[in-house]
Amino acid sequence: MKVGIVGAYSVKYELRSEKEAWELIGEVVRGTLKSVDKGISSKDIDFVVVSNFSDRFGGILHTAPYVVSLVGNPSARGLRVENACASGGTALYVAWNLVRTGLAENVLVVGYEKMSYQPTSAEANEVLMAAGHPDEVVLGAPFVSLYALIAKSYMDKYGATEEDLALVAVKNHENGLRNPLAAMRRKITVEDVLKSPYISWPLKLYDSSLISDGAAGFIVSREPRKFTDTPVYVESVSLVHDTPGVFERPDITELRAMKYAAEEVFRASGLGISDIDVLEIHDAFTISELIAYEMLGLARRGEGAKILREGVTAFTGEKPVNPSGGLKSKGHPIGATGVGMVVELYWQLRGETGDRQIKDAERGLMENHGGTGGTVVVAVFSR
Amino acid sequence: MKVGIVGAYSVKYELRSEKEAWELIGEVVRGTLKSVDKGISSKDIDFVVVSNFSDRFGGILHTAPYVVSLVGNPSARGLRVENACASGGTALYVAWNLVRTGLAENVLVVGYEKMSYQPTSAEANEVLMAAGHPDEVVLGAPFVSLYALIAKSYMDKYGATEEDLALVAVKNHENGLRNPLAAMRRKITVEDVLKSPYISWPLKLYDSSLISDGAAGFIVSREPRKFTDTPVYVESVSLVHDTPGVFERPDITELRAMKYAAEEVFRASGLGISDIDVLEIHDAFTISELIAYEMLGLARRGEGAKILREGVTAFTGEKPVNPSGGLKSKGHPIGATGVGMVVELYWQLRGETGDRQIKDAERGLMENHGGTGGTVVVAVFSR
Repeated sequence: MKVGIVGAYSVKYELRSEKEAWELIGEVVRGTLKSVDKGISSKDIDFVVVSNFSDRFGGILHTAPYVVSLVGNPSARGLRVENACASGGTALYVAWNLVRTGLAENVLVVGYEKMSYQPTSAEANEVLMAAGHPDEVVLGAPFVSLYALIAKSYMDKYGATEEDLALVAVKNHENGLRNPLAAMRRKITVEDVLKSPYISWPLKLYDSSLISDGAAGFIVSREPRKFTDTPVYVESVSLVHDTPGVFERPDITELRAMKYAAEEVFRASGLGISDIDVLEIHDAFTISELIAYEMLGLARRGEGAKILREGVTAFTGEKPVNPSGGLKSKGHPIGATGVGMVVELYWQLRGETGDRQIKDAERGLMENHGGTGGTVVVAVFSR
Repeated sequence: MKVGIVGAYSVKYELRSEKEAWELIGEVVRGTLKSVDKGISSKDIDFVVVSNFSDRFGGILHTAPYVVSLVGNPSARGLRVENACASGGTALYVAWNLVRTGLAENVLVVGYEKMSYQPTSAEANEVLMAAGHPDEVVLGAPFVSLYALIAKSYMDKYGATEEDLALVAVKNHENGLRNPLAAMRRKITVEDVLKSPYISWPLKLYDSSLISDGAAGFIVSREPRKFTDTPVYVESVSLVHDTPGVFERPDITELRAMKYAAEEVFRASGLGISDIDVLEIHDAFTISELIAYEMLGLARRGEGAKILREGVTAFTGEKPVNPSGGLKSKGHPIGATGVGMVVELYWQLRGETGDRQIKDAERGLMENHGGTGGTVVVAVFSR
């Protein structure tokens, strides 16, 4: 029995949506159900998993029964999960386990976040800070500063430069130009990034992902062929933790939990990084994408920037990373982010992404992490 | 294979704790691990489920990896669940399923809420409102008003009086006097309740549960006898939804999802209400306890007040309800509430509750619901 995805939907991510959180949810529920090739009925959906970070980003809680009522099957069960920016990946992990253990037949996953519910980005960042280790929260350490510590250490250790980081942003913005669902479709140059203001040295405005609004959904099924002739199979999903506190880690230039999650997912699926054709990676800050290359096995330690410069992870490269534009250009509406990665890979592996289609993509990998890597979800999909 | 609870802990609930949310969590993690009769090691805990309603009640998110780091087993996985006031029951549901499907061996559940993080009860109530149906949220309908609608309809239909409601509060406060962990240990009379100010007619201040701080935890195990000679077995857990909107229900004098959840849990466990010796019921407002009697099968429709007056649910009655003092006297720190019910029943069925011990209690039932019954969890335990 192989669990498969049989439907997916995403709204266009925006810096500020005119829709309320519950309208975004409603659109995604309708869109996801409607996206199923052979159709799916209300009563087929027997579990709902909602991914959302904070009610300060949308003003609502207790959303599982609301989604159940929208689906229209009163027998469906549901819950909301939260693991910071990895809430979407966690929802996939839960849905996959519900289906493969037989607890559910078809799980609808809905992720959303309306970050513009906070009037300013300073206030939004204050909400985000709650995802840190309590000692970091008390300190008032924003994530850009925690990632700046990681970036500085990494640069010192491996000789990476601010320009290397900038190249991640340039690549992902170029990819985002091809994605009509991306929040910021704007071509940028290395110079643009380097000239953008420091937020927390060495990280600049253009090293940071977008505070944005968005929602996405997908359906995980126990009998995928009942609903489509071209399902996307979930090969394996791994959820691994590290201490949420950067200060508690022996080496802050690595994201340990990501390494373990990738190893576990490859071991469980019998696949390796060489089998992967397309990747969606959690580029919350440019430095995270570089380190992810190394944790996932795309590059050796310290050689993330090298493979980036060689074009390995470019749209036309051997291992294209973030054809969607990533968190940097597509956007990072927290609870939707991991869910949206699944949606993008579902479309990529079915060949439905138009201008941004990776040719002959048969297997995809997603990496979605929370905080500075306190939670990491890695999953592999195949068509 | 019968899943069992092998350890439990609770802090004393308080109207305003001097501890921060993460200190409450820390105390519960240490206390729960230490409570296991034969001891349990860090590496035995392979999954963590956190129950918490809102980060506006404590200031922190992404708490699963924090709990994992406190446990000290980096291989443990975790997530936070939220289903409004039924978050604790939902955590039990998830833990029970993780263990019975073999996905985990021993799950640590931690529930907490620091509601005094909001400076006033008006502000706390604003946070709570987010658990309503979006249309109720937009309307700005506080839960006391939604429950007032339910109470008024119930009173009209079945002739129940404000005094009947008051008797629920009087009973639970009397029980709370025997519980050193209760937040408000104060004997009250029917007159006290009737004289207390209306919050939303016909519900008064003393018909309402306590905005409070608290945390509790327990461990669900696949091999309970490895850790204690006197585990408490989880017979069955049911999680059922209704639309979160009171306005969408055909008959607001019943809590449908509770009826279905009770039926399901009895069917699955092969037990009936006649087998139950002690109950912990979600008395968010006095009216909810009366209706719960009927939904759970303790009383016929419309006869909730009758059995209450007959003393059936009194401490010395045939079916004692809320020996802990319930949400009314023990307190209602949202994310901790359902978890604390499990803890109380664990202690009751092991005969460890001192002055408030129900004699020869062999089987217990908990009912934990969210919003106005949009989510209901019912579980049955046996010693």
